[in-house]
Amino acid sequence: MSEILNGPAGRIARLRTLMAERGYDAVVVRDEANLRWLTGAMRVFDYTGEYPHVAFVTADECFLHTDSRYFNSFEENMPAGSPWKLDMDEIDMPRWVAEHARSTKSRVVAVEDDMHIKFYRGIERGLEDCSICASLPLMHGDLQLMRAIKDAEEIELMRHAQSITDAAFAHMCTKIRPGLTEKQLRTELETFMFDHGADDLAFGSIVASGPNTANPHAIPSDRVVEKGDFVLMDYGAGYRDYKSDMTRTVCVGEPSEKQREIYDIVRRTHEECVAAIHAGVDGHDIHLLSQKIIGDAGYGEYYGHGLGHGVGIDIHELPVFGRKSNIVEEGAVITVEPGIYLPGVGGVRLEDYGVVTASGYEPFTTSTHELVVIDC
Amino acid sequence: MSEILNGPAGRIARLRTLMAERGYDAVVVRDEANLRWLTGAMRVFDYTGEYPHVAFVTADECFLHTDSRYFNSFEENMPAGSPWKLDMDEIDMPRWVAEHARSTKSRVVAVEDDMHIKFYRGIERGLEDCSICASLPLMHGDLQLMRAIKDAEEIELMRHAQSITDAAFAHMCTKIRPGLTEKQLRTELETFMFDHGADDLAFGSIVASGPNTANPHAIPSDRVVEKGDFVLMDYGAGYRDYKSDMTRTVCVGEPSEKQREIYDIVRRTHEECVAAIHAGVDGHDIHLLSQKIIGDAGYGEYYGHGLGHGVGIDIHELPVFGRKSNIVEEGAVITVEPGIYLPGVGGVRLEDYGVVTASGYEPFTTSTHELVVIDC
Repeated sequence: MSEILNGPAGRIARLRTLMAERGYDAVVVRDEANLRWLTGAMRVFDYTGEYPHVAFVTADECFLHTDSRYFNSFEENMPAGSPWKLDMDEIDMPRWVAEHARSTKSRVVAVEDDMHIKFYRGIERGLEDCSICASLPLMHGDLQLMRAIKDAEEIELMRHAQSITDAAFAHMCTKIRPGLTEKQLRTELETFMFDHGADDLAFGSIVASGPNTANPHAIPSDRVVEKGDFVLMDYGAGYRDYKSDMTRTVCVGEPSEKQREIYDIVRRTHEECVAAIHAGVDGHDIHLLSQKIIGDAGYGEYYGHGLGHGVGIDIHELPVFGRKSNIVEEGAVITVEPGIYLPGVGGVRLEDYGVVTASGYEPFTTSTHELVVIDC
Repeated sequence: MSEILNGPAGRIARLRTLMAERGYDAVVVRDEANLRWLTGAMRVFDYTGEYPHVAFVTADECFLHTDSRYFNSFEENMPAGSPWKLDMDEIDMPRWVAEHARSTKSRVVAVEDDMHIKFYRGIERGLEDCSICASLPLMHGDLQLMRAIKDAEEIELMRHAQSITDAAFAHMCTKIRPGLTEKQLRTELETFMFDHGADDLAFGSIVASGPNTANPHAIPSDRVVEKGDFVLMDYGAGYRDYKSDMTRTVCVGEPSEKQREIYDIVRRTHEECVAAIHAGVDGHDIHLLSQKIIGDAGYGEYYGHGLGHGVGIDIHELPVFGRKSNIVEEGAVITVEPGIYLPGVGGVRLEDYGVVTASGYEPFTTSTHELVVIDC
């Protein structure tokens, strides 16, 4: 489908093409998802919000500074033939960047937008100490925009993550029943995913029941599921650092008329929005379409979030179906997840994720869109 | 024990004392752990590495900007009588900071060291647009240093988190047996904690067996536990956003002479280091002591990490028992976790955590230091 070069070598080539266009001699990378993407090193990164690594990429070379805790893990988990040169010298990391700017004669050294101000100033001081005059422009989201277009290797990993996720849904349909708590169902769900190949959770699973389903970000509680409840599950698996994301809402016993009504509106919104997706579309337009369908059905005020977001190494990536204009390109992997939330009553969300193609959208999710009714 | 003011009101008072000393008119806070600490809002923050909030604190007022996804959750989960003024106006957040600098006439506006360079420049531009001349000095870790000293409320939450963690260890001692995989034991462990009141995991649990115990950051695998293995578990619970952290290494069947030897050295190191801790000690000295004991026993090259780290809302906080000099004050909550890792053979780590007192160290951990031998 996508014609982009595959794997980390392809990604570095794409970065270098961009560097040439922008006039960057080098790029400094610290974000772990960006590093996972560029190195292809599987299951090395912690994604804890600490920044133990820094990379310096030029037109010819890839340098990575790490520390003793990770060195062996990189050596073992880098793809064969990796171009990365690792070191773990005991040197201040901003100083390491400045030294590499000096040794590679890089004069335009681009940095990530979320580089910490202290680190940025550390590089500036390092450059001064080396008597180097270099500029440190911000990349303004360039890496995130590149990561938005997935290659075949990434899509394969995400399809696999989703297969675990779909299997977990089928399993839960046999387990949900009145008398179990949301927390017990969460344990059942997460245990199933770990037992079936998940490396991690994509995020802390949402399992909500009854009126709790009206809170889009509900945390599993000790509430006991009752006959007549909606049960909403929003969850995903992590597989080789890539994530899946899925939401299904089932009904415990026969749905009321109101439950059936809002489920049907959410399902119709989902499917009409999917039908409107194709490469080159503006993500804002698709979001507006979802608002219009739900609004026309009379529930506009009960749908407050965006329609969808990109997924990859991070659970929230570009592009988005949301408030701002952004072009959705071929190869983007994105969720579609409309919802209606009636305070005190309950809510429904129906979420698939998949890849944008030239003419449409190919979901990775295979679970039914029908309202599953749990016999009880 | 500690005489500091308790709870979020006390923390804001401590921040304002520091602001007066430093000459700051205002402080800008984005880090979610810092915001949790200052607001006392329980289980509102995601800690996902996104930054949906920003706070602006002056000598008289506390402003918090958030978005629609979190607004209700803040209103519900702020402690009673909270001084925070919330808004979710649709305004660019750096611009919001600049507007508050203008309206509060703040001219020295301190920021966190890890503020993103793009956000920092956004504030600078916002100040220009408002024709405000303000300086934006870095706080150089001030908030982290304040958070290092825990108040009674925080210690209570961490003792509770640890009680779940100790109970999980007792439970695992009845479950570990040859034939189970590391992943199965991980599921058993984490399910127990969730079933016994954990809100979250402190971090992805480490369960390692046999030769895998020689990797300090092992990821649970499909390896099957065998008679004669060490099983090492490093894990913790999250409770109301606070974390616990504990490591125990047990032996499946009678230990070999070598296993007994390294276990005893690690235990002795742990206990001699604990005996040396008191308020005012340099964390580097305690770390050196651990290196000396393990080195004198002939295993210096098999102990590569620091002896311990602070714990609180984040799993890694200040102070540290490590490579750098830093004073460990009364009220610091910190781990003690020496280890010996023999490649191809196996490793032992023994970790408690607790609070530093005027004359010593009071562990929250109550599980035995004896080598637990699993009958099989």
